[in-house]
Amino acid sequence: MFQKVTCGCAAGVAAAFRAPVGGVLFALEEVTSWWRSHLMWRVFFTSAVVAVVVRSAMNWCNSGKCGHFGAGGFIIWDISGGQEDYSYQELLPVAIIGVIGGLLGALFNQLTLYITKWRRTYLHKKGKRVQIFEACLISLITSTVSFVLPLLRKCSPCPELETSSGIQCPHPPGTDGNFVNFYCSKDNEYNDLATIFFNSQDDAIRNLFSAKTFHEYSAQSLITFLVMFYSLAVVTFGTAVPAGQFVPGIMIGSTYGRLVGMSVVKFYKKLNVDEGTYALLGAASFLGGSMRMTVSLCVIMVEITNNLQLLPLIMLVLLISKAVGDFFNEGLYEEQARLKGIPLLDSRPKQVMRNMNAKDACKNQKVVCLPRVSRVVDIVSVLQSNKHNGFPIVERGQNGESLVIGLILRSHLLVLLQSKVDFQNTPFPCGPGILNRHNFSDFVKPASSKGKSIDDIHLTDDELGLYLDLAPFLNPSPYIVPEDMSLAKVYNLFRQLGLRHIFVVPRPSRVVGLITRKDLLLEEDGNTATTELQSTSVRSILSTSCKLSFSLLRRYAQN
Amino acid sequence: MFQKVTCGCAAGVAAAFRAPVGGVLFALEEVTSWWRSHLMWRVFFTSAVVAVVVRSAMNWCNSGKCGHFGAGGFIIWDISGGQEDYSYQELLPVAIIGVIGGLLGALFNQLTLYITKWRRTYLHKKGKRVQIFEACLISLITSTVSFVLPLLRKCSPCPELETSSGIQCPHPPGTDGNFVNFYCSKDNEYNDLATIFFNSQDDAIRNLFSAKTFHEYSAQSLITFLVMFYSLAVVTFGTAVPAGQFVPGIMIGSTYGRLVGMSVVKFYKKLNVDEGTYALLGAASFLGGSMRMTVSLCVIMVEITNNLQLLPLIMLVLLISKAVGDFFNEGLYEEQARLKGIPLLDSRPKQVMRNMNAKDACKNQKVVCLPRVSRVVDIVSVLQSNKHNGFPIVERGQNGESLVIGLILRSHLLVLLQSKVDFQNTPFPCGPGILNRHNFSDFVKPASSKGKSIDDIHLTDDELGLYLDLAPFLNPSPYIVPEDMSLAKVYNLFRQLGLRHIFVVPRPSRVVGLITRKDLLLEEDGNTATTELQSTSVRSILSTSCKLSFSLLRRYAQN
Repeated sequence: MFQKVTCGCAAGVAAAFRAPVGGVLFALEEVTSWWRSHLMWRVFFTSAVVAVVVRSAMNWCNSGKCGHFGAGGFIIWDISGGQEDYSYQELLPVAIIGVIGGLLGALFNQLTLYITKWRRTYLHKKGKRVQIFEACLISLITSTVSFVLPLLRKCSPCPELETSSGIQCPHPPGTDGNFVNFYCSKDNEYNDLATIFFNSQDDAIRNLFSAKTFHEYSAQSLITFLVMFYSLAVVTFGTAVPAGQFVPGIMIGSTYGRLVGMSVVKFYKKLNVDEGTYALLGAASFLGGSMRMTVSLCVIMVEITNNLQLLPLIMLVLLISKAVGDFFNEGLYEEQARLKGIPLLDSRPKQVMRNMNAKDACKNQKVVCLPRVSRVVDIVSVLQSNKHNGFPIVERGQNGESLVIGLILRSHLLVLLQSKVDFQNTPFPCGPGILNRHNFSDFVKPASSKGKSIDDIHLTDDELGLYLDLAPFLNPSPYIVPEDMSLAKVYNLFRQLGLRHIFVVPRPSRVVGLITRKDLLLEEDGNTATTELQSTSVRSILSTSCKLSFSLLRRYAQN
Repeated sequence: MFQKVTCGCAAGVAAAFRAPVGGVLFALEEVTSWWRSHLMWRVFFTSAVVAVVVRSAMNWCNSGKCGHFGAGGFIIWDISGGQEDYSYQELLPVAIIGVIGGLLGALFNQLTLYITKWRRTYLHKKGKRVQIFEACLISLITSTVSFVLPLLRKCSPCPELETSSGIQCPHPPGTDGNFVNFYCSKDNEYNDLATIFFNSQDDAIRNLFSAKTFHEYSAQSLITFLVMFYSLAVVTFGTAVPAGQFVPGIMIGSTYGRLVGMSVVKFYKKLNVDEGTYALLGAASFLGGSMRMTVSLCVIMVEITNNLQLLPLIMLVLLISKAVGDFFNEGLYEEQARLKGIPLLDSRPKQVMRNMNAKDACKNQKVVCLPRVSRVVDIVSVLQSNKHNGFPIVERGQNGESLVIGLILRSHLLVLLQSKVDFQNTPFPCGPGILNRHNFSDFVKPASSKGKSIDDIHLTDDELGLYLDLAPFLNPSPYIVPEDMSLAKVYNLFRQLGLRHIFVVPRPSRVVGLITRKDLLLEEDGNTATTELQSTSVRSILSTSCKLSFSLLRRYAQN
């Protein structure tokens, strides 16, 4: 289940941005709190298949019959024609972009958090109509702003462009490109605000990233766009509309990036600087400041723009923007997940946990144990009286002392109560073979539902008087920690193993054994066994190679 | 310590291959068995600094005063001039390259494993002179082969080259490039074997990757080179010479890749296929088949060749070669680490562990416990009588029952025995404040040594009669598992938390508490606290932004 989500996420990013490696890293850096190397392999597999399929489909659609699909090639915003080098003087403006990205990103996260909270508390309680009305209102405002603001802006005369660059001003109607003529009175004029505002986001980003188009935008237009788009993005995020934050983030970032780029072009006249490059760095910085990812953003930015030369600058910008953002709050996804009540654990325990122990964490709630063979009525009353999700099962040992034999989940108890097939008359443990009455799938919670509730289950008085042997259905060895273990250590256990429950037990009275790493290694190979295995192995490699070469030779001979 | 190794590894790869993101991923995929997101952030930071520094140094060295440093630009083997697209018919030869890579890579791992074993068992026991002689002999053979084999090969006449491609045949003496004239009788001839053999590996790879140089190499030369170089690489790996496997791996892979490419050019005449592209894919496949990495190799290959268009093919090749290789044996580094006795745990527990429990793993050894206040002579005899690295400490509780109070490491006991300052006359627990007598650094094992041994410590009879209170020095809460927990679960605990010891304890008699994920979340924020924190947060973001803009404005005004 969890692995499927991670793979799906990678596939989505890989397909949407045509960035397969970026997709893998995005899934691993952002989605999983729980990392294993065979998970990486599976995610990589998914992403590679996506890459090959998308690439083949694009080839197949080259005829243009597939609409917008496949436009832009495998690299969406190719800026490989732009700046290929940078000098050390540019490190200062690049650092400034990083700081701006961190600040604007952190502010974005904070504002969207407020608005989402407000929506959840006031607005969306008033019903679905309000949600629809809200979405319509915002889309109306967006359309109006996108149309009216460019209209108010005066057109500028076209600059002289080299014919070799392939850029036309104004670009011919019906095509996508720079220098949009938007109700301009003269033919050789263009409206710079319309070039970014009254355009698809895809094309707007391409225009902002574009190289060799100096002074295309006035600072005034860019600032107007930045303020309006930032506000609209904040308001739109979280409405009842499926919308991402990735492309708007690139829009915002590239706008202020281009602004900084314009001043760099102005101040460092001797350098070979391109405004489009700074737009790219700005986009990276805003995403870094808002989402707080590093490696994956870096790879995604490189994959969508095809400019590896700028990699050191992108890394620098991401470092700074993430550090600045982390100073104020958490990443966008973490904040939103927390708000939704998803129990997402931070990568590190909070400072306060270092001074607490495991017992402190469970002080407020009493543990409710169940005996191995319980009366149905007892189980029902336990389930009704609390909201715990797991219950320890206790049994009397041979010497009369009690013994914890495992953990049973609330959801499994509910399944057993509903199916009723395991109810028995006697209060004695049942024999083996009981599991045959159930399929494994009976116990799997459907992904789309919130699970059953005890109130949904109706039992007759006769049934309530019966017994249920829980032994076949419990988890016989949940992880345990001694009661005085530091809570920070417990936290790491939860986080690294992806646990949901842990038993806090008294300090043990004796140690049965001590396992070290070497014990676990010795399990897997005695020396002699290995050597035999290896000789087989070389033989099998050689024989497979021979077979392969023969079949290839035969194939060639037939040709 | 562990984090430093990971960061250092990333820095090395980032600098050597000028592949900063690849370096990060290499370190995380190959070096660490233990992953945390703040580790990723640190590694990324290291790598970004390396990228910026290397890039600046290269700029500074543009004058050419720094020797070979900086040659080749930030992208070492730029193949961006080559094939930019591929058709679905090419998927078959690409898959074949993957399979060959997997087979040759697995064979390489197996052969080097044998030779390394043989070296350790027979050769290197005979002293350092033998090691030096071995290294000299291999270097002599390598030189002879590299010189004599090209001499035996007949020169070929130069093909007609487009002047626009910038390639000359033969290339002018004193420069590096394709078409080496190696004692050829005529001026317009070149020796294809010398072009790869009698050249630096760096240039040889550039020549093999080079685009638009069809039929530069004959199949005969490539096969000769492949066989000789593969054998030499197998023999050289593991001699007393610091040498990597990365560049030789690229050499081997690109040779058979180019071979496959030649047949593709021959059979699919209509397609726009470049031999250099197949050389690149071959290189990726051999590295994948031998090292068994996925994401990091992918990124490194893209970073060193600057061709993002081929990413789907590289991913496909890596997938196949890793899968084929995994069928036979483990990755090169894992095999070698195991041989060196480094307790590196696989990412997954072995199948047999699923049917074993924790108690089975420690069946063969008896646990040796120490009382909290032990006699020095007892500690010495315990240390002498076994080789355990950790000892449980047991104390009598208030009701007379025994209680496990923690774990002490052998190395810490040795430090205490050597320093002698904690020895006391009475067998009663000491007061607090005892730790002031020691620095933390006393207990840190020096990275370069094998640690102390009990035989190095000399104690008088008087000292042996004294007592030592171990309580201040123990780890009070090591992780514990119940004795009947599945060994596979224990394995995951070890692996995910990077543990070295674990206590196996009897099944607990009662549960003090049950911690769930939500308990850990509630610890970190009560709702009211969060809201206050957040209003501060937005204010502080805004005020920082204002300060920043003012200082920028002031700076601009001054200009």
